[in-house]
Amino acid sequence: MLYTIDILGTIAFAISGVLVAFDKRMDLFGILIIAFVTSVGGGTLRDLLIGNTPVGWMKDITYTYVIIVSAIFAILFRSKLDYLRTSLLLFDTIGIGLYTLIGVEKGVNADLHPIICIALGTMTACFGGVLRDILCNEIPVIFRRETIYATACILGGISYFLLGGLPIEKNMVFVISGLVTIVIRLLAVRFKIALPNIYRDRG
Amino acid sequence: MLYTIDILGTIAFAISGVLVAFDKRMDLFGILIIAFVTSVGGGTLRDLLIGNTPVGWMKDITYTYVIIVSAIFAILFRSKLDYLRTSLLLFDTIGIGLYTLIGVEKGVNADLHPIICIALGTMTACFGGVLRDILCNEIPVIFRRETIYATACILGGISYFLLGGLPIEKNMVFVISGLVTIVIRLLAVRFKIALPNIYRDRG
Amino acid sequence: MLYTIDILGTIAFAISGVLVAFDKRMDLFGILIIAFVTSVGGGTLRDLLIGNTPVGWMKDITYTYVIIVSAIFAILFRSKLDYLRTSLLLFDTIGIGLYTLIGVEKGVNADLHPIICIALGTMTACFGGVLRDILCNEIPVIFRRETIYATACILGGISYFLLGGLPIEKNMVFVISGLVTIVIRLLAVRFKIALPNIYRDRG
Repeated sequence: MLYTIDILGTIAFAISGVLVAFDKRMDLFGILIIAFVTSVGGGTLRDLLIGNTPVGWMKDITYTYVIIVSAIFAILFRSKLDYLRTSLLLFDTIGIGLYTLIGVEKGVNADLHPIICIALGTMTACFGGVLRDILCNEIPVIFRRETIYATACILGGISYFLLGGLPIEKNMVFVISGLVTIVIRLLAVRFKIALPNIYRDRG
Repeated sequence: MLYTIDILGTIAFAISGVLVAFDKRMDLFGILIIAFVTSVGGGTLRDLLIGNTPVGWMKDITYTYVIIVSAIFAILFRSKLDYLRTSLLLFDTIGIGLYTLIGVEKGVNADLHPIICIALGTMTACFGGVLRDILCNEIPVIFRRETIYATACILGGISYFLLGGLPIEKNMVFVISGLVTIVIRLLAVRFKIALPNIYRDRG
Repeated sequence: MLYTIDILGTIAFAISGVLVAFDKRMDLFGILIIAFVTSVGGGTLRDLLIGNTPVGWMKDITYTYVIIVSAIFAILFRSKLDYLRTSLLLFDTIGIGLYTLIGVEKGVNADLHPIICIALGTMTACFGGVLRDILCNEIPVIFRRETIYATACILGGISYFLLGGLPIEKNMVFVISGLVTIVIRLLAVRFKIALPNIYRDRG
């Protein structure tokens, strides 16, 4: 089940990479690399910072296959991807919910402070998109004032530790804190919720 | 004492990150990340290259607290930061003096060649700013022709090894070579000293 | 012999970095860093991902000397570098042929899947140029639609594994698969071969 969601997240991230690379008119190779980096970038940074090497995707070839197939699919059917927009948003959202928890768990296993664990979780979920935007020569979208994204991951990570202090089963902690990220993100998209505007005084 | 200076440097770097992120109109989350990256980016790259993982800031939560508080302070009082410009420059300068030595020492402890150690020291001092500029989609300021900055770190690192060959106490070596970086940097700012212009022939 | 080619590749990459940094009017320090990053960036990423730290160039000071001397040379004689354009292309091409194989071998030694090994080889050959372009605030040239480059590395890597399955001496496998990369790259430059254009439908 978890593995399935992980793969769905990988697919969603890969396709989002293809779409951005398209807009930049990259060649086939560039598109494939951006798809790859968007999918595995977050987990790679996390593994490097913790010292967990060779990094994850090098040890399980499945991710590579999934990304290549997703990218080819997205290239072939790109004119029809608009129909999939809602599904893609859902995959992406489930993906960040899960990626956050995977990152938090890796931090906990490395005996790191809860705040650092939450940072690792957020990084796992968000850094692939940051790398995608850097390689495409854009200011990363999650740093601009848009509907909240990373904040949903942070709140999911906080839930994990708050719930962990209560007498609840581990599995439930995992499910509920994952849902926190997912529900907050979906509500933010639905109701266009952003972080408070701190630039009001500048007009 | 050293720890105090380290924290002052962290504060100065964090605030410099906030100021750049402001100019790019990033949201609260983006500002916080840029503050963080500017502060710990140099040490993180150094630790990754040496293989010292989990990297430093993950093992001492103080840095995270200091950066968050500095960033919130800078956001709240940003209209008044101009009054602090001189203090900020001083913190930043003391910061790079110290960061350089910390990086050099880590290289020495890993048995690396003096030139590599100096590179590690300069990286520790300067790479946070480079990352800040990349994430903000700018050519890193230290690569452009401005008053010297990285060069001050390199000279501080060289002093460390030159003095190390003399019959001087370790502490004094540390203090003097730190001062070399700091004094050169302050003189460069005061007298607008830059590296030689190699573009003269192009007008 | 291999070491000689490795050094020639390092020189070619360093000079290519200097040329790009020049166009961006960086100062001396910036130019040196770009030269360095272009030369060692690919191998550094590979070593970090595998967990081979301290990374390669930190353990053999020769690379640092070669890069510094090449950069100074390129700065002094930059107006005459046009005469060297063909030699530079040749060095660069031999360089990526060799770097690919070095990366593939490191992956094999770390018991990684052939596809991952080929990715490591391609990364070793190409990522220095990617970093160079990111630091210079450009979309990496190898992601744009130009004559094929990374694809030549991938094909060289594939040859390595195909030939490895045949009853051929290890040295011959090495030589032939290196030549595959080199010949494909040179043919691509000569006949302006690029990946298929996937944007035709957009005009």
